Amino acid sequence: MNIPFVLGANVEHTAILLDLFIMLAAAKLMAEVFERLKQPAVVGEILAGVIVGPSLLRWVEPSDMISVLAEFGVIFLLFNVGLETKPQSIFQVGRRAAMVAVAGVLLPFAAGYLIALAWGGSFLESMFIAAALVATSVGITARVLGSMGLLDTETSRIILGAAVIDDILGLIILSIVSSVSQGSVSIAGLAKTAGAALVFTLLVAIVGSRLINRLAPMFARSRLERPFFAIGMILCLGLSVASAYIGVAAIIGAFLAGIAMAEATEDNKKMHQLTTGVTEFLVPFFLVNIGMQLDVSVFREVSVIVFAIVLTLVAVITKIVGCGAGAWGLSRREMAQVGFGMVPRGEVGIVVAQIGLGLGVIGKNFFAAVLFMAVATTLIAPPFIKMLFTVDTDGDGIPDPITEIDVSDHFGRIG
Amino acid sequence: MNIPFVLGANVEHTAILLDLFIMLAAAKLMAEVFERLKQPAVVGEILAGVIVGPSLLRWVEPSDMISVLAEFGVIFLLFNVGLETKPQSIFQVGRRAAMVAVAGVLLPFAAGYLIALAWGGSFLESMFIAAALVATSVGITARVLGSMGLLDTETSRIILGAAVIDDILGLIILSIVSSVSQGSVSIAGLAKTAGAALVFTLLVAIVGSRLINRLAPMFARSRLERPFFAIGMILCLGLSVASAYIGVAAIIGAFLAGIAMAEATEDNKKMHQLTTGVTEFLVPFFLVNIGMQLDVSVFREVSVIVFAIVLTLVAVITKIVGCGAGAWGLSRREMAQVGFGMVPRGEVGIVVAQIGLGLGVIGKNFFAAVLFMAVATTLIAPPFIKMLFTVDTDGDGIPDPITEIDVSDHFGRIG
Repeated sequence: MNIPFVLGANVEHTAILLDLFIMLAAAKLMAEVFERLKQPAVVGEILAGVIVGPSLLRWVEPSDMISVLAEFGVIFLLFNVGLETKPQSIFQVGRRAAMVAVAGVLLPFAAGYLIALAWGGSFLESMFIAAALVATSVGITARVLGSMGLLDTETSRIILGAAVIDDILGLIILSIVSSVSQGSVSIAGLAKTAGAALVFTLLVAIVGSRLINRLAPMFARSRLERPFFAIGMILCLGLSVASAYIGVAAIIGAFLAGIAMAEATEDNKKMHQLTTGVTEFLVPFFLVNIGMQLDVSVFREVSVIVFAIVLTLVAVITKIVGCGAGAWGLSRREMAQVGFGMVPRGEVGIVVAQIGLGLGVIGKNFFAAVLFMAVATTLIAPPFIKMLFTVDTDGDGIPDPITEIDVSDHFGRIG
Repeated sequence: MNIPFVLGANVEHTAILLDLFIMLAAAKLMAEVFERLKQPAVVGEILAGVIVGPSLLRWVEPSDMISVLAEFGVIFLLFNVGLETKPQSIFQVGRRAAMVAVAGVLLPFAAGYLIALAWGGSFLESMFIAAALVATSVGITARVLGSMGLLDTETSRIILGAAVIDDILGLIILSIVSSVSQGSVSIAGLAKTAGAALVFTLLVAIVGSRLINRLAPMFARSRLERPFFAIGMILCLGLSVASAYIGVAAIIGAFLAGIAMAEATEDNKKMHQLTTGVTEFLVPFFLVNIGMQLDVSVFREVSVIVFAIVLTLVAVITKIVGCGAGAWGLSRREMAQVGFGMVPRGEVGIVVAQIGLGLGVIGKNFFAAVLFMAVATTLIAPPFIKMLFTVDTDGDGIPDPITEIDVSDHFGRIG
């Protein structure tokens, strides 16, 4: 009797279920360990991916199916963050967010280009590595701040707003670099890409919320059991697709969808609980998948390891300095909060590197180094973010999350 | 400039996102329409799949990725149903559920075999078609009853219990049929398959709940933000994998996981809300995917259409009569509730047919007919289930869901 056949009416599905079971169990185990060590749970979950992935145990191999689920994870994470974000609160910090984004793009790009060139990279290779250093993955920071209940502080809102602008700038840079690598730069094409991204983002940010608020009474008359949840999920997927087609990261669309829904309903709390369920289920796959991207076996040559470490340091320092400087005028602690909040490159950096590899522009060694940088920055930032956002307000020896009021009370403009 | 490349940092992911967006939007639109027509939303969502799928618009093609998400959907649906089911309440109806399951397996199998043989099927072909007629997909019924808030009636519990036993019997039959088709029947092998399935199910059903209750205080000391939700998800995936490896459907494992968690925590309500979010997001993909399995273009020959319709009628009538008879001793309405509740074959019937096709045992025409039967039974049952479980108790012209008390008050033993 052909056991595996009868057994796994669908053997492949069973294999995927097993992969996801391992990932989820490992993630939660490591999150527990890290929480007990008073370290951010996200770091534990990413390390879980390093452990069960190709670097160590090899229990789970990265696959298309897993990466789609991972992308869902970060999409719903940003949608959920958007639900907690009122559009005005982002517009209020708009100018500062723009400064943070621009400074946080220019400095890493310039430094990344020079360091890669110095390490023997070609012009194109160096351009791509520079582009990979630009892109901030706001998912990690949002996760850390969200789990501390601090998404509504001024610096959190600056980080979120800057991440949106950062992504558009990153798209423009990536478009330029890609078209240079294919030997043709069309100014018209670039303008179109940039224009579409800008118009889409502004349109959704400005009109989206009003439109949804206008339509809310219609939704409320729906016969569906959970109309706002259904509309929210549809909008989340729809705007993710739309932004991906325009060229911005899908998570930006998801974030905008969340913002558009943020004020739609009295029932927002119930809907938020439901979307939290989806997010909490999917986010571990996003985090573990980042860890699984790292395959330490590629680091055979010492020079690659050294370059990877140098690149990581450059990535960390330039983002902190650039974004921190962009937040000039805030207290020193707040500038540091913004700077460290923009450090993780996560999946966005990985995607840029993959495009470079796909175009045949960057070599395997440089690709490995960029991958290392993307994962390492994502691991380094959370402990600092957690530290910078906590302070022992009540003097009991245990740091408490800083709320807006705490900041102005205890640290107002000390910088 | 290579737009699609720069754009879709991951073109494939974007395509999948688009598919899911279309499926979700179509599902909710059709659900709304069907609710307004006072018809079950599930029927609307399955028809959404027929509309956007290969049969009509061809906007979305069935794919591996979609079918994995669909399987997740039904897994979490059954987990969620399990969360509302106390183990004792299933054991209480155990004997009756067993009778329902056995009678509801024998009659469809015999009738399916004979009708396929009469239609010119070979011995093996007829055996496989008979096996496909056996398997009940409890997901659809659970969905309809759950949305009416009627999962806790006696007949609902009989249906759930019978579905578990039905699945084990279906596995045994499928094992026999598969091994016959490969020319070797090993009694030892069959006993092993059947024994493992039985032991696993009983063990989890009996020990699972107690073990989880014993461990609950430990879980409560976890530092995770939502420890019971995390444990629940891990257990759900873990037992789904385990049952799939043993050969029972993954949904049985998920259902048992839900039952095991049902009493674990005071905080069950909050956890249930979170899992409801996951379920509500994923279930539409399960329903739409069933509709997408149907490709009406295969029905070129009239004889295939006629056979498909006859097979569907046989599938419906034999389940109603068999399961209804198994519920002998209840009121006539309750017997009908149980009978119609077991009618949908859904994804389980499709899987059996796919195995037959994979083994090269059943031809394309018979496969098409079985697929039609699986989808049609799934579409036919819900309106009857809804009707049989509602009655105009307060005489206002609008049928209300029957609660346990209503049944004994108004219809007690009328049969």
